[in-house]
Amino acid sequence: MISRVEYHVNFYDTDAMEVVHHSNYIRWFEIGRVEFLREAGITLGELMDDGIVFPITDVSAKFLSRGRFDDVLVIETTPTALTKAKMAFDYRILKKEDETVLVTGHTQNVFTHRETGKIMRLPDKYYKKLAAMLE
Amino acid sequence: MISRVEYHVNFYDTDAMEVVHHSNYIRWFEIGRVEFLREAGITLGELMDDGIVFPITDVSAKFLSRGRFDDVLVIETTPTALTKAKMAFDYRILKKEDETVLVTGHTQNVFTHRETGKIMRLPDKYYKKLAAMLE
Amino acid sequence: MISRVEYHVNFYDTDAMEVVHHSNYIRWFEIGRVEFLREAGITLGELMDDGIVFPITDVSAKFLSRGRFDDVLVIETTPTALTKAKMAFDYRILKKEDETVLVTGHTQNVFTHRETGKIMRLPDKYYKKLAAMLE
Amino acid sequence: MISRVEYHVNFYDTDAMEVVHHSNYIRWFEIGRVEFLREAGITLGELMDDGIVFPITDVSAKFLSRGRFDDVLVIETTPTALTKAKMAFDYRILKKEDETVLVTGHTQNVFTHRETGKIMRLPDKYYKKLAAMLE
Repeated sequence: MISRVEYHVNFYDTDAMEVVHHSNYIRWFEIGRVEFLREAGITLGELMDDGIVFPITDVSAKFLSRGRFDDVLVIETTPTALTKAKMAFDYRILKKEDETVLVTGHTQNVFTHRETGKIMRLPDKYYKKLAAMLE
Repeated sequence: MISRVEYHVNFYDTDAMEVVHHSNYIRWFEIGRVEFLREAGITLGELMDDGIVFPITDVSAKFLSRGRFDDVLVIETTPTALTKAKMAFDYRILKKEDETVLVTGHTQNVFTHRETGKIMRLPDKYYKKLAAMLE
Repeated sequence: MISRVEYHVNFYDTDAMEVVHHSNYIRWFEIGRVEFLREAGITLGELMDDGIVFPITDVSAKFLSRGRFDDVLVIETTPTALTKAKMAFDYRILKKEDETVLVTGHTQNVFTHRETGKIMRLPDKYYKKLAAMLE
Repeated sequence: MISRVEYHVNFYDTDAMEVVHHSNYIRWFEIGRVEFLREAGITLGELMDDGIVFPITDVSAKFLSRGRFDDVLVIETTPTALTKAKMAFDYRILKKEDETVLVTGHTQNVFTHRETGKIMRLPDKYYKKLAAMLE
């Protein structure tokens, strides 16, 4: 299941090359990931209240074309792997207008205890919701 | 007592007008404020461990001249008022090279309980250190 | 005429106090200002192509209540003054859910030549559109 | 030749998990890259004045340990490949205090014409300086 969410590029997202600063796409992967979880019925806030955080361990991205101020982007997020300890996603960020792919990427996140930072096994109530999204 | 700290402008601090995005100066006031506290012998981390946070309630700034990528800036922070409930600062951000003033500003912060968000009276051990800096 | 635009708070907008970092509201005033111009029929890109930039000279803000991750905010932008050389706006940023006002603010921007940085008189084609919005 | 530059973590670099937001490390790779160029005798500003920009095409990072507010970090940048069309770097970001490695990463950047965005061959005056750093 692919999750999609739009983002309207702000002036403050640009840099002196008059394009979106590349680090912002890494932030927008997070928007995609959070939207995916939301569509699965999970919010980061709910996880945190249960003492679970979901830190990123790996990210990679290819920057194919430049985004600009005022572009409307579509962030596509696809789950690629899920265990009770970790979850991986692929991303594509496109210009809505003409579907140019600006950036592709991949992240891996782990489920950890908020207090100790140690990796944990995700409780079933969350795992089942995520697993249902990968079928 | 004026506190001074340097900041080297990064490429990611610029925007498509090829100058520093104005919102960054508001962030750099925070660098100045934190440096002032450090010189007074107080770290934000220590305050937070004591259940105290120091949120901002008011900010104003005048943008007089434009900073650019690779500029070395000096952030000057001057305390202007202190009670056990709040503290105010004036700021100047200058180009180190020629002392051009880029931005002037003012903030007011309050001491609050981290858990409840309610305004508190700053414990004496901190208050005395700050008061000594205003003499 | 009040312009309104929504913003969904991202995880990366928060800080270690578990609230929105205050500098982001200054960025979101820009979202409001850009939306206001868009509703007037003007884009920053079009202005820049005509050699006009619209830098900020003054900002002030009061932080009344804390925004948090996942809040849906409404940015309200009201023009308060317009001449051919400058324009001022008032802002309110509210939580959509219960209309709590988180932040109020004010900015002044000037119309300048992109190349020289000198203040200019805004061409009539733009001025008329903005003036129509203040009536 | 490894280039090293320090960065003092600011409060605004943290997120609601009370650690540095991961996207900031991608920004700090840029600080490392710019410092490397500076040590080679090249500034981004000089390149841009010559009509050359140096956009990133690929980034990857592994997040091994969490940085926190007030940490002093060391950004280590090592060139790994250089042609007249592109350049690659490895990064390590460490805590200065105990040399814990927080993040490792890799980027590839290309030399392009600022106006057209097309890949170019880097002029000899720059290439020689960079090549000297890889010996």
